[in-house]
Amino acid sequence: MNNNFSTNPLSGKKYEIPSTLDDKSGIDDFIKNNSGKKIIVVQGLGFVGAVMSIVCANSLNEEYAVIGIDLPSTNSFWKICSINEGIFPIISSDKKVEEFFKKSKEKGNFYATYDNYAFEKADVVIVDINLDVQKDDDHILGKHNVKYNVDISNFKSAINSIGEYCKEDVLVLIETTVPPGTTEISGKIIKDNLKKRNLATDLVRIGHSYERVMPGPNYIDSIQNFYRVYSGIDEESANAVESFLKTIIRTDEFPLTRLKNTNSTEISKVLENSYRAMNISFIVEWSRYAEEAGSDLYEIVNAIRMRPTHKNMMLPGIGVGGYCLTKDPLLASWSRQNLINGNSNLAMSENAVTTNDKMPLYAYEFFKKNINEIALQKKNIFLLGVSYAPDVGDTRYSPVELFYNLLLKEKFDITVSDPFVKYWEEKKVEVQNDFTDLDNSFGALVFTTGHSSYKNNKDLMKIIMDLDEIFILDTIGILNDEEIKLLSAKHEVKVLGRGDL
Amino acid sequence: MNNNFSTNPLSGKKYEIPSTLDDKSGIDDFIKNNSGKKIIVVQGLGFVGAVMSIVCANSLNEEYAVIGIDLPSTNSFWKICSINEGIFPIISSDKKVEEFFKKSKEKGNFYATYDNYAFEKADVVIVDINLDVQKDDDHILGKHNVKYNVDISNFKSAINSIGEYCKEDVLVLIETTVPPGTTEISGKIIKDNLKKRNLATDLVRIGHSYERVMPGPNYIDSIQNFYRVYSGIDEESANAVESFLKTIIRTDEFPLTRLKNTNSTEISKVLENSYRAMNISFIVEWSRYAEEAGSDLYEIVNAIRMRPTHKNMMLPGIGVGGYCLTKDPLLASWSRQNLINGNSNLAMSENAVTTNDKMPLYAYEFFKKNINEIALQKKNIFLLGVSYAPDVGDTRYSPVELFYNLLLKEKFDITVSDPFVKYWEEKKVEVQNDFTDLDNSFGALVFTTGHSSYKNNKDLMKIIMDLDEIFILDTIGILNDEEIKLLSAKHEVKVLGRGDL
Repeated sequence: MNNNFSTNPLSGKKYEIPSTLDDKSGIDDFIKNNSGKKIIVVQGLGFVGAVMSIVCANSLNEEYAVIGIDLPSTNSFWKICSINEGIFPIISSDKKVEEFFKKSKEKGNFYATYDNYAFEKADVVIVDINLDVQKDDDHILGKHNVKYNVDISNFKSAINSIGEYCKEDVLVLIETTVPPGTTEISGKIIKDNLKKRNLATDLVRIGHSYERVMPGPNYIDSIQNFYRVYSGIDEESANAVESFLKTIIRTDEFPLTRLKNTNSTEISKVLENSYRAMNISFIVEWSRYAEEAGSDLYEIVNAIRMRPTHKNMMLPGIGVGGYCLTKDPLLASWSRQNLINGNSNLAMSENAVTTNDKMPLYAYEFFKKNINEIALQKKNIFLLGVSYAPDVGDTRYSPVELFYNLLLKEKFDITVSDPFVKYWEEKKVEVQNDFTDLDNSFGALVFTTGHSSYKNNKDLMKIIMDLDEIFILDTIGILNDEEIKLLSAKHEVKVLGRGDL
Repeated sequence: MNNNFSTNPLSGKKYEIPSTLDDKSGIDDFIKNNSGKKIIVVQGLGFVGAVMSIVCANSLNEEYAVIGIDLPSTNSFWKICSINEGIFPIISSDKKVEEFFKKSKEKGNFYATYDNYAFEKADVVIVDINLDVQKDDDHILGKHNVKYNVDISNFKSAINSIGEYCKEDVLVLIETTVPPGTTEISGKIIKDNLKKRNLATDLVRIGHSYERVMPGPNYIDSIQNFYRVYSGIDEESANAVESFLKTIIRTDEFPLTRLKNTNSTEISKVLENSYRAMNISFIVEWSRYAEEAGSDLYEIVNAIRMRPTHKNMMLPGIGVGGYCLTKDPLLASWSRQNLINGNSNLAMSENAVTTNDKMPLYAYEFFKKNINEIALQKKNIFLLGVSYAPDVGDTRYSPVELFYNLLLKEKFDITVSDPFVKYWEEKKVEVQNDFTDLDNSFGALVFTTGHSSYKNNKDLMKIIMDLDEIFILDTIGILNDEEIKLLSAKHEVKVLGRGDL
């Protein structure tokens, strides 16, 4: 096997990574074909960068030439090739994604590369690379708080490569969710490079404006038609960010909000996600309390949500997943201690992550405590849902993963089903899209993701009612009272967050 | 001094408490004058019970005769007399309060008494007495969690006095915020009494439906025109509660929600308030973090609130006060351990109270750290606001109290002002309603309550700008950017939750 290949996981197509990394002529040709247009380079072609690129290529009131840049690595090189071959590297339920990509290819104003030479040509650089948290999992079974580390050296290298090549009057707009303090550091890195290159350091504009991208049916709109918060390292930078954002976002309907410095917008982003993580962790202990009191917490929370001041109360469930809520409180807490040099961490926000990470463990313990003889004998389990959230096909940091791992440890056979997932990347497992395999070989059926197609689904109810006795666990509030009543006539039904049924 | 007097704190009028406690004839006369009407007895004539009484006396589609009952004690006897003399015991900014009371007096269908004989006549008893938490304050300066106790013996006695007198088919509706589990206990107490009295025990109806009363300009509407959650100890009880509530609440516009048992509605109430307490405590550490990062948390939170999913994010400030948020998380945690017999307390909800209780201490430390020479020399401070919340005259558990106490300890002279408070009951201090006394004798001015009349107040700005140099601290986000800029030209201005100005 040659390691210098990068494979498109969607099509299986392989691309050889060239040994000589030079795409100058490709970039030059692209620019020649787009003469007169301002050039935007989008750094990072992941869930955000790829879609941000096509939004820029279809901007509202300016014609841009957009170059997407990513690393010539096993993980990323195929995306570059795929884009240039006319195949968008992300499959989306939002039709606008394909439409925007097609238009950009027709206009010829979107190109992808791995060559930092692109930065030499950029009028605007948009930074959309990831910045991850290294998280230890042993707190889930232990009593201590989550242990984690944040390493910003890769991020700093990426910024450095901009500084090594960029024009002295470039606008660098960081969209990545970073530990607050990072944009200020990035500004210094770029200016240090400009100085070294004997260029002016007062013409560069550097700002931060975080994305609120939601992959799913409103993927494009979550960029183009949504509120934005932005800032700059100085007033000129903030002005430059504002002018630029106005060309790609419908700011007439979704006005921009400028904050006083880059720390503020960075804090704003991690605060948004920490707030949600906190609200979930808060409800966890109430979920246990409700079970003990014979109460149904779903019913209670829905009653409370009728108050406008309480609309955002979260429901309990199997756990918290996804890329943001599981790490952003930690990015913030790490920043406070290491970049802002505060006196302490963000203890409550760290606690929230600790609590949330344990949720699937509780769901598993609840399953084990309640499981009946039939389920134990058959040792065969059918899981409904592997996505971390309803109605998306995103399995990153899905809470179902821990639940699945714990079942595996106890030697259960598990069949997984999810209408939005064909292949569970993290577990290397094939996923069914429907319930056709759900038969009498299964002793237990567990609802693990709150997909709306599971709710009020009469076909599914019929299939389950036609089965021999099966143990049913709803970890996520799919079943309504009527369904529980119906199913209970034949099967044993348990619901997490509810007391005696 | 005769201890058998009860004084109306509003008018100063004194009432002698009779040595022979017998109001049978008064009650009988009242009932005779209201023959044919169903009789409601409201137990407790405080902020909820007094107003609940006049809402019942002006019910939507049924004519009730309402008897308010309270204890013949120094604290409460004057309320009974005052009501019967035609003077409502609560001054409210809601004109409907006076209007409803007047109408009930004209109709002659509202009477007040201390005599439990009233329970003999009741078709409906509404329980609106208080159930307090005994809280230790030493956690505020210490590092441990809040210590507290809940004593439900007084509440049980009150329920017992209903059971000793009530009809066997009475409807007892508990509105008090109680530790979940209390209504079930109350049901047993009443049934035990009925049994002892050789009456049927299957005709009584007992339920729980918590109030969401907000004293202030919408006092009446917060009862009559607002969503209600209710439950009964059995289905017949829940049905009886529902039928009754429909006669006093506009349930066509604000539909009722029935929950499966009384534990559930009791949990619902304390969860509502714990949720808010939690959301405030969550923001506290972010407030410190923002200060360290030179960011303005008010600005950040307002930017985040543009997202519909984040509308309810709270703002930081001097602290959390009022009767509910400071105790309800503890009622819940106590219940879990003592009535529901769960495995543990509600740790996060207790933490929220601990954190919130410390907020005024931080505000004071922030004041001390930032105060300048001028303020230190003059040792004379002007506080704007003593209420615990904006635009109400309610000083119960106000966070300003701890702030005030800490200043007193350091021998500051303090003048307090609040447009809604004439006399600060808890501190026995006269309160000014305006700013006329704010002159050059003061070295510091502190905004301590977020009254809307303080916001964008040009007169106030002019008064402050005409002063010699004064130290200004905004603990609650009153001042906007423009005002801070204006004031900073002459004075030193500091804002809690904001970084360097």
